[in-house]
Formats: sequence, C-alpha cells, structure tokens
Amino acid sequence: MLSSCWRQFPVTFAARRFTAAAASADRVALIQGSSRGLGLEYAKQLLSRPGHRVIGTCRDPGSAHELQKLQDSSKGRLSIVRLDVTDEQTIQAAAEEVSKQHGHLDLLINVTGILHIPGKISPETALSRITPEALDVVFKTNAFGPILTAKAFAPLLEKAESCSGASNERPAVVANMSARVGSLADNRLGGWYSYRSSKTALNQLTKCMCLEFARKHRKIAGILLHPGTVDTGLSEPFQKNVKPEKLFTRERAVQQLLGIIDSTTMKDNGRYIAWDGQDIPW
Amino acid sequence: MLSSCWRQFPVTFAARRFTAAAASADRVALIQGSSRGLGLEYAKQLLSRPGHRVIGTCRDPGSAHELQKLQDSSKGRLSIVRLDVTDEQTIQAAAEEVSKQHGHLDLLINVTGILHIPGKISPETALSRITPEALDVVFKTNAFGPILTAKAFAPLLEKAESCSGASNERPAVVANMSARVGSLADNRLGGWYSYRSSKTALNQLTKCMCLEFARKHRKIAGILLHPGTVDTGLSEPFQKNVKPEKLFTRERAVQQLLGIIDSTTMKDNGRYIAWDGQDIPW
Ligand SMILES: NC(=O)c1ccc[n+]([C@@H]2O[C@H](COP(=O)([O-])OP(=O)(O)OC[C@H]3O[C@@H](n4cnc5c(N)ncnc54)[C@H](OP(=O)(O)O)[C@@H]3O)[C@@H](O)[C@H]2O)c1
Ligand SMILES: NC(=O)c1ccc[n+]([C@@H]2O[C@H](COP(=O)([O-])OP(=O)(O)OC[C@H]3O[C@@H](n4cnc5c(N)ncnc54)[C@H](OP(=O)(O)O)[C@@H]3O)[C@@H](O)[C@H]2O)c1
Repeated sequence: MLSSCWRQFPVTFAARRFTAAAASADRVALIQGSSRGLGLEYAKQLLSRPGHRVIGTCRDPGSAHELQKLQDSSKGRLSIVRLDVTDEQTIQAAAEEVSKQHGHLDLLINVTGILHIPGKISPETALSRITPEALDVVFKTNAFGPILTAKAFAPLLEKAESCSGASNERPAVVANMSARVGSLADNRLGGWYSYRSSKTALNQLTKCMCLEFARKHRKIAGILLHPGTVDTGLSEPFQKNVKPEKLFTRERAVQQLLGIIDSTTMKDNGRYIAWDGQDIPW
Repeated sequence: MLSSCWRQFPVTFAARRFTAAAASADRVALIQGSSRGLGLEYAKQLLSRPGHRVIGTCRDPGSAHELQKLQDSSKGRLSIVRLDVTDEQTIQAAAEEVSKQHGHLDLLINVTGILHIPGKISPETALSRITPEALDVVFKTNAFGPILTAKAFAPLLEKAESCSGASNERPAVVANMSARVGSLADNRLGGWYSYRSSKTALNQLTKCMCLEFARKHRKIAGILLHPGTVDTGLSEPFQKNVKPEKLFTRERAVQQLLGIIDSTTMKDNGRYIAWDGQDIPW
C-alpha cells in the first residue's frame, strides 16, 4: 500500500507532486512466468539493482521454491503473485493485486512459454503429428496468455507517465518473449508447427498492441525479444546440435536482454529484436 | 467408388496404368467451407469446367440450401460432405469418405474463415476488447482448422502423383485462404487482433507445411491467397469505407483466384499471393 503512487499524496496535490515522486520512487517490474528459467533470472537481476520492486508471478507459488528463496533474501522488494496465463481470471486478479500494492507498473515482461511438456507434448516434426490438443495449449500459453496479460496490465502501465514520469525517452515497457523461429522470413527448415506459429501469432498480436499504444500517444513501448538459445528446461532436449559457444547461460542471456529493455524508447515500439540488438525480419 | 483411382485397376497393373488414367480421369477438388460466400462460388466455377469432380464440405449440409441446389444440377459431379473445421473427428471422417469415393485428391481449398459472429464476436478495435473466447474460436476456425484439414487430406493429395500424374509443373495444390491483414510487414493500422493474428498463424503453419512438402519431394504445392475485399457475409459490416471499384464480386474474385491456382507449379510452393498475382510481404 505504501508504495502505491496513487495513494502517497492527497488527491488534490497529486498531479504536481508526481514529478518529484518519479525521481525517488522505486521502479515496479512484473515478471510474468518467474518460477524458473529466464523468468527467475530476470527477477534475480532486477532485484540486484537498487530502486526496483519486483512482482514475480507463477501458476503455482507453493512449488516455486527458487522464487521463494529469492523472496526471502529480497528485503520485501519481491512479491509473489499467482497467475496462470491460460486462465484470465487469475490474470485479472493479479492485476488488481498489483494495482493495490503499487498503483502503477513500469515494466511488464511476459516470459512464460512452452515448447514441450514432458510425456504430453513435443514439437511436431511433421504435419501428420499436429494435434488440436497441442495447438490449443501452446497457443493459449505462448500467444493468448501474454496479450491477455498486457490487456490486464495496460491501465497500470499507462499510469507510469504520471506516477514515475514515463516519457518518450523512457517509456513504460512491455517486453514479450518471442523467438527467432517465429519469423516467417527466416523459416527455412519448417517443423515445430505449434511453437513457431504461436510465436508468429504473438508477434502479430504485439504489433497490433504497439500500433494502438502509438496511436493513443501512450508512453508505453512494446518490444518482442529473442534471447538466443539459452540453457533452460525449455531448450534442454534440443541442445545436442547447438555449439557450446551458441548456448547462452541464463545469466548472460538476461543481461543482454535487460540491456535492450533498459535502452528502449518509443522509437523501439513494435520492434522484434534479437539478443544482440539486431532486428529480426518478420 | 467407380472413380477411385486405387480401385479402377487390379493392384498388380495399377502402377503402369496410372499414367494413362491421369490423362482421362476427372480432377478431384475439395472446397472446405462451401455453404456460402467464396466457397460456394469456388464450387460453382469448378463445376462449370468439364472434367472436374467437386466435394463441397460444410458444417451443416442440411441448411446449405445453395449448395444443395448446385448439387441438384451437377449431374452427380458434386458431393456434399459434412466437415466442421473445429472438430477434428469430422475432418478425419470426411477424409475417409473422400478416400472411398475418389482415392485421391488434386486440389484442396481451405476457404472457411470468420471475422465476426453476429451477436457474439466482432473484430477487436482495442486491446481492452480481446477475450479468450474470441481468440479461441477465431484461431480454431481460421488457423488450426485449415492445417488439420491439410493434415487429414495430405495422404490423398500425395496420391495425385500416381493417380492423376501430378508433377512439378502441375502439382496437387493446397490453397489456404489467408488475408492481407495477416501480414506483419503490412500492418500499419492495428486492430482486428484475433482475425489478423489467426491469419498470421495460418501463414506460418502453411509455410511449415510447404517446407515439408518440398523436403519430402512431394508433388504438392501449398499457397496462401488474399482475395481482395469481396462482397460476402464476412465483409458486409465493414464495406462502407471500401471504394466500389475495390469491392469485388464473388464471381470476379474466384475467377482471379482460380487463375492463380491453375498456374501453380512447385516453384510457387510457400507463396503468399494477392488476387493480382503479387507477393504479399510477410
Ligand atoms: N530457452 C531458449 O533457448 C529460448 C529460445 C527462444 C525463446 N525462448 C522463450 O523464452 C521464454 C522463457 O523460456 P525458458 O527457456 O525460460 O523456459 P522454461 O525454463 O521452460 O520456463 C518456462 C516458464 O513458463 C512457465 N509457464 C508454463 N506454463 C504456464 C502457465 N500456464 N501459466 C504461467 N506460467 C507458465 C513455467 O512455469 P511452471 O514452473 O509453472 O511450469 C516456467 O516458469 C519462453 O517464452 C520461450 O519461448 C526461450
Ligand atoms: N470476403 C472478403 O473480403 C475476404 C477478404 C480477405 C480474406 N477473406 C477470406 O476468404 C475466406 C472466405 O470468406 P468469405 O468472405 O467467403 O466468408 P463468408 O461468406 O462469411 O463464409 C464463411 C464460410 O466459413 C464457413 N464456416 C465458418 N465456421 C465454420 C466451421 N466451424 N466449420 C466449417 N465451416 C465454417 C461458413 O459456413 P456456415 O454457413 O456453416 O456458417 C461459410 O461457408 C475466409 O477465409 C476469409 O477470411 C475474405
């Protein structure tokens, strides 16, 4: 409650005082999908910075032991909130919780993504292996979930302008974790039907969102990020053909991606960017 | 049964005789989604050609009165088969039926698509209007359905090589009805979140399929078609800003698209083509 920008000042003086507050207030970042992999690492690295408050969401806080450990050492700067990206009610409830706690949001990173579910789903190597069940869960998780999360948190990201001084040069940011295999132009091998096309759909949903942000003159920039191939549970079964120097540690990958996020201005709104800062063709 | 390529000849002589059969046999075309709009018109125009047998699928044959009329005047060359693109069992059953009737397939046109459902779904003009329900039905209909249909009919399309002499110059064809608004590069307005991104996903799913066809040296070409804005139920509520000369009749649109389909070779495999033959950027 105390850190809520909307609750720090008597209403009538609020507008004038926000600029002063902007300089001193903590930046509020939400990592959607932070139980493990890149999401957990994002939370770690953001917490290692002074002046950041982090909300780490996951679908089962009770079993997110690494995230809990991080919370224990966070001096109250990390809160864990339940959010299952395939269930919009939990997304809305999480947005209400963050609204109560912080009143605004400066950074939303949608990290959640699935390529395989052990014993259930593996990426399709042929047309004949596509199933409605896999399409359903992969799209709900990788494409629909992130855009529904952006929808729920957009009102809080909008408040970054008055709460923490978001501007064209330093907008609030929605960073959606995409993947290079979502590129149509770059698809030369085929395969991985559901995963690829869910990321392509995420790219288009995000592009629509970014055009809307720009049209409405909101100080929110959306970007799509490809982290490279990173040593996580997601890539683990598919690492054998990856050269060791091309397999990034989580630490390195997130450092690189936070570098991109940190330097995002409204000019970057709508870009599809690889770990090295290069644009990926659609 | 009589027209089944696999059933016309005693098995041992089958291979040798197929070439002769190819010249004389009817071409078999399936129009997935032919109760009305562009699908019905595809069926009409293909039936007006000599040497074509057409399977028109729809989710409710009982209420497809126009299609029934067409069947009555088709001299047995049009069969109507039930297929609900959101229900894989009906897709598989339709493929079994066509296998029994014809033994192979030369042309599959996936026409089914939704932009709005009166009283239920309208294209989203803002992020705040996206719902899981709309995403679900729009993607199932526009993206998952066509690729699951292609999956079910691929074995019959493969048989076009031996049954009707499909070659690199005149391959069997899968034509998926996409739309220009599915383009990422061309998206300058945003909006229509579900429809746009479902077509973008269809483009990627189709691209994967085409790469697979090419890799396996199958004589099947996949193409993605944009018909222009056509006067049908789908575009009806959105026609007021369309200049009259830019609003095609169904007759004209399908003539143009069949021109593209007729001239398709394996070199066109994987293209995303507008009504005027121009490539659309991804
Ligand atoms: N690793 C790579 O090489 C690579 C390459 C390109 C792109 N990416 C993208 O980067 C992102 C992160 O990947 P990663 O490698 O860190 O994957 P990961 O280690 O497998 O982690 C996936 C995360 O998604 C969460 N998740 C899955 N389903 C969820 C749901 N329904 N609701 C909420 N959370 C859910 C998981 O939570 P649970 O613990 O509850 O399962 C987990 O935290 C993904 O979007 C991925 O596509 C990764
Ligand atoms: N018209 C345009 O301006 C335009 C522009 C660009 C792209 N397109 C694309 O062209 C294609 C044809 O559009 P249209 O204008 O002909 O649309 P339409 O007149 O609205 O016809 C849509 C067709 O899809 C069928 N359908 C809907 N849900 C189905 C399901 N679950 N299973 C099976 N069939 C289903 C409908 O059957 P029911 O009769 O059972 O409802 C109907 O036959 C679509 O893919 C559309 O996206 C059209």
